[in-house]
Amino acid sequence: MSKKTTPDNLETLRHSTAHVLAMAVFEMFPEAKYAIGPAIENGFYQDIDLPRTLIPEDLDILEEKMKAIIKANFPFEHAEAPIDEAMHDFEKAGQPYKAEMIRDLKEKGENKVSIYKSGSLVDLCKGPHLDSTGEIPLDAFKLTKVSGAYWKGDEKNKMLQRIYGVAFATKADLKDYLHMLEEAEKRDHRKLGKELDLFCFSDLVGPGLPLYTPKGTVLKDELQKHIESVCRKYGFQKVSAPSLAKPELFEISGHAKKFGDELFHVTSEKKHDFVLKPVQCPHQTQIYASKTRSYRDLPIRYMESDKQYRAEKTGEVGGLSRVYAITVEDGHSFCRVDQVKDEIKNMVNIIKDLYSSIGLWDNHWVSLSVRDYEHPEKYIGEPSDWDICEKILQEVSDEMGLEAKRCEGEAALYGPKLDFMFKDATGREIQIPTVQIDFATPKRFGLEYINEKGEKVPPVMVHRAILGSYERFLVLLIEHFAGAFPTWLSPVQTIILPISEKFKDYASSVEKQLLEADVRTEIDASDESLGKRIRAAKMQKVPYILVVGGKEIASNTVAVNARDSKDQTVMPVGEFLEKIIAEIKEKK
Amino acid sequence: MSKKTTPDNLETLRHSTAHVLAMAVFEMFPEAKYAIGPAIENGFYQDIDLPRTLIPEDLDILEEKMKAIIKANFPFEHAEAPIDEAMHDFEKAGQPYKAEMIRDLKEKGENKVSIYKSGSLVDLCKGPHLDSTGEIPLDAFKLTKVSGAYWKGDEKNKMLQRIYGVAFATKADLKDYLHMLEEAEKRDHRKLGKELDLFCFSDLVGPGLPLYTPKGTVLKDELQKHIESVCRKYGFQKVSAPSLAKPELFEISGHAKKFGDELFHVTSEKKHDFVLKPVQCPHQTQIYASKTRSYRDLPIRYMESDKQYRAEKTGEVGGLSRVYAITVEDGHSFCRVDQVKDEIKNMVNIIKDLYSSIGLWDNHWVSLSVRDYEHPEKYIGEPSDWDICEKILQEVSDEMGLEAKRCEGEAALYGPKLDFMFKDATGREIQIPTVQIDFATPKRFGLEYINEKGEKVPPVMVHRAILGSYERFLVLLIEHFAGAFPTWLSPVQTIILPISEKFKDYASSVEKQLLEADVRTEIDASDESLGKRIRAAKMQKVPYILVVGGKEIASNTVAVNARDSKDQTVMPVGEFLEKIIAEIKEKK
Repeated sequence: MSKKTTPDNLETLRHSTAHVLAMAVFEMFPEAKYAIGPAIENGFYQDIDLPRTLIPEDLDILEEKMKAIIKANFPFEHAEAPIDEAMHDFEKAGQPYKAEMIRDLKEKGENKVSIYKSGSLVDLCKGPHLDSTGEIPLDAFKLTKVSGAYWKGDEKNKMLQRIYGVAFATKADLKDYLHMLEEAEKRDHRKLGKELDLFCFSDLVGPGLPLYTPKGTVLKDELQKHIESVCRKYGFQKVSAPSLAKPELFEISGHAKKFGDELFHVTSEKKHDFVLKPVQCPHQTQIYASKTRSYRDLPIRYMESDKQYRAEKTGEVGGLSRVYAITVEDGHSFCRVDQVKDEIKNMVNIIKDLYSSIGLWDNHWVSLSVRDYEHPEKYIGEPSDWDICEKILQEVSDEMGLEAKRCEGEAALYGPKLDFMFKDATGREIQIPTVQIDFATPKRFGLEYINEKGEKVPPVMVHRAILGSYERFLVLLIEHFAGAFPTWLSPVQTIILPISEKFKDYASSVEKQLLEADVRTEIDASDESLGKRIRAAKMQKVPYILVVGGKEIASNTVAVNARDSKDQTVMPVGEFLEKIIAEIKEKK
Repeated sequence: MSKKTTPDNLETLRHSTAHVLAMAVFEMFPEAKYAIGPAIENGFYQDIDLPRTLIPEDLDILEEKMKAIIKANFPFEHAEAPIDEAMHDFEKAGQPYKAEMIRDLKEKGENKVSIYKSGSLVDLCKGPHLDSTGEIPLDAFKLTKVSGAYWKGDEKNKMLQRIYGVAFATKADLKDYLHMLEEAEKRDHRKLGKELDLFCFSDLVGPGLPLYTPKGTVLKDELQKHIESVCRKYGFQKVSAPSLAKPELFEISGHAKKFGDELFHVTSEKKHDFVLKPVQCPHQTQIYASKTRSYRDLPIRYMESDKQYRAEKTGEVGGLSRVYAITVEDGHSFCRVDQVKDEIKNMVNIIKDLYSSIGLWDNHWVSLSVRDYEHPEKYIGEPSDWDICEKILQEVSDEMGLEAKRCEGEAALYGPKLDFMFKDATGREIQIPTVQIDFATPKRFGLEYINEKGEKVPPVMVHRAILGSYERFLVLLIEHFAGAFPTWLSPVQTIILPISEKFKDYASSVEKQLLEADVRTEIDASDESLGKRIRAAKMQKVPYILVVGGKEIASNTVAVNARDSKDQTVMPVGEFLEKIIAEIKEKK
């Protein structure tokens, strides 16, 4: 998700390192059949069909072989070959995956293919590459893991082995990255999601379709209540649209073309023909269109948290990061041209409010994502409209002190936008919120309002994402806080531990007071020792553990063990209640 | 939805009246081609293909002709005919719809058909009928309207004309019914939904797919908040499941077979194969199954408000009553056998709480819906389990004073249940809440818990619907309250009308105080006269209209016009605030 922070030659370095890995694998397994080996964020991977499953120790051997290849300094030689000749050569060389890729290219009408040769490896590859393997730093790459990957990402195809590696320009960069990775692994949302019982999967329901347990549902609901209450303060009204629509709706909006084979089609034996919505904008235009609107009614601001559906590749879904249905908190303002600037400021303030409340605002930067001026054909709409929009966004940036960086070529299809980038606790860059100006969609749907002169004119649509999808935002929250959510978000906010059986009644009376104040509370009165129960509660990252025994009953107090403190503080029940209620209210 | 309150012979009377109508139509249009003409609740209808569209005056003519046919006292004569002969006869008689119905029967393997003859009419009909037309009371039926109806309910087929009629045993019953109908028409949710701007439809989205406007969304959300807070008090925890699942999930649960062609299938160009959930129980079993459960963990109570999908016939969707996706507030308790009784009592108490809060509890009756003892083959599960369940339900009824009527043959496939029937303001009977015991589903999914002896045994599942689907419940609420919702449910709770322009600032300061107290408030400061604005607000059924002018500013008061009162009461702003906050809190 990083945006223009990675120099282009790092990508070349990573891609060339993938080739070196392929060469090393060949030395180990001459019968290897290789598939793709692209550069990815922070590194590269190589998919290979091998006679046996790799073990972790193999990675050390491969790294040594890679170093030898780098030292040998083989040049990367580029050539073009006629497509049939290339297909024949790869088939003859026993490389069926490459041959299939060439066949696919031929079906698309290509008649030549690009080939790179380096040392013993001849690969179908578009490049670019370094000049020679020797340019790769010897101490700035590392093979990290092996996993399974379906050929072409389709679970109906053969499962290949995927070797992942990371590669940087310097040893120091590699070290920093590995440290971040180690931290991220501890915080992995799939691991914590299971440990904290937030969500689960079922073989009968299917992968890519998470089920939220009661605790995960609290998290999602609290988030929704919070974002909706923030947006309501800024004049957004909640609407509720169906998940289905006739295909026509998305043909008009342009999304049918944009999403193509990512669309889910809904049919029945009764010959129904619907599409599961991939985005929410088109449905919201139809609520706007249900009444005659006057210039006095604008701006009209709609928001909704609802599921959007994308037919992701079956082999690629996993955890909450890649699922078939994401629950998106989407919102739009339908306004007049003279209101656009205030609408954008309004939305930027919402973003500031929300991300401040989870401690991310202090570490952000903003992209003013404008057109690629050399390729105006990539966009829709009038250049004069684009000029107005870009000017408005620049003014918003100046007036609000956003110091947005102009990023050319990063605009949306229909207009320029402001994108907000944050860094989470592990240092990863996250891009979620965005504000986009759109003159095109209202025209496509024939939306109108009556202006002061009594004429029917189209409104402007301003799109905004604040937290994006709940699924991705939960990944961010879980990993950012390593499961130790702020109290207002914690599924269980306090847990009461009676020292022994005879203090259970008192524990219940304290629980009752907390529940009545809407503090999410549990009692653990199991037979386990107090120490064990405290450890279990700390593992569950409950913000406050309240121990109660004879002393506490006598003084109507609780012994408070805060999650992030080693000390225990005894305080009256009423005082604890006040403290936690204030903390929840202030979303600290 | 009435349950055993209509004597069987009323249905016979209505069906025979439909035949009399068909005979009358024939006299008017000898070329008429008739389709089906069943008895329905309160009356009957007849679908006919006619050479011209009927006008309301035609109904009077038809009624007169029907009376003459009744007076002529034609006997209803029953006969059976070989299927091919019957098909030939109906084709020859120029009755293609009847011929097609006979063809369908033949495809199902029938070799004979049942025929009724009366006067000039020979009809394909299963009966039963009265002995002769003279048994129909002359003054207790009425033709009510004509509408379009697709042949076989499929919009791809020809649109026929459907003549509706009502028929009763006595003139007095007819009169009562027509009065209720008149009242119901005024309250029709489609009419009020538009007038009060609660929901809308879009041709691009499609019929059967309502879009909720901001006001309708408030209504739905307030309802959800209320039911969830009531259920939370009774120990239910919210969960959140996806809309999709592999077909396998519903094959195991038995719903794939049960819903058949009502299932929506979800596919993609990437060869995905999912089903949109028609019910929520199977998904909830999978959350239960995600962890090992102990007897100490039970009961585990899940609830969720989520959309369920049914592929209704395209020609039959309309308003909110029949839609493709209903949002159901569904809930289940997974418990031990010894807990079942308390679980049911718990659920009955929730039903009592909710329906009391909207004033319907005082007018209810309960059905203890048990097996059809003569046909045990219609059910699944062990007879001994059924005996236990029926006994438990009887005990609950006795101990809670429900006075449930035993209704044989009304049980669910997997177990007996308690059904609750209410009467709305127009006198219509409504059946929504239900509590059902289910020994079968947990076994089908292999659900388990570890009992006190350390053995793995299946839990019992108790299903409960409280408000059923939001869509149907909204229909009930809109029509029951005729749009004048209690204050807590009203989309706009107060509207402030400044007498003129110069009192706008004061109006805004009052608005601010109300909004801060979470009272949903609007200002109408348009150029219209005060009288016109008051009428508009009353049309919108806003509970409180606050008029403010010079006198109110001077005394820091508001002039309160309650929706259901002709008087205006001036009171301090603070006093009004206290009054409305209390009213909202108490859900009066």
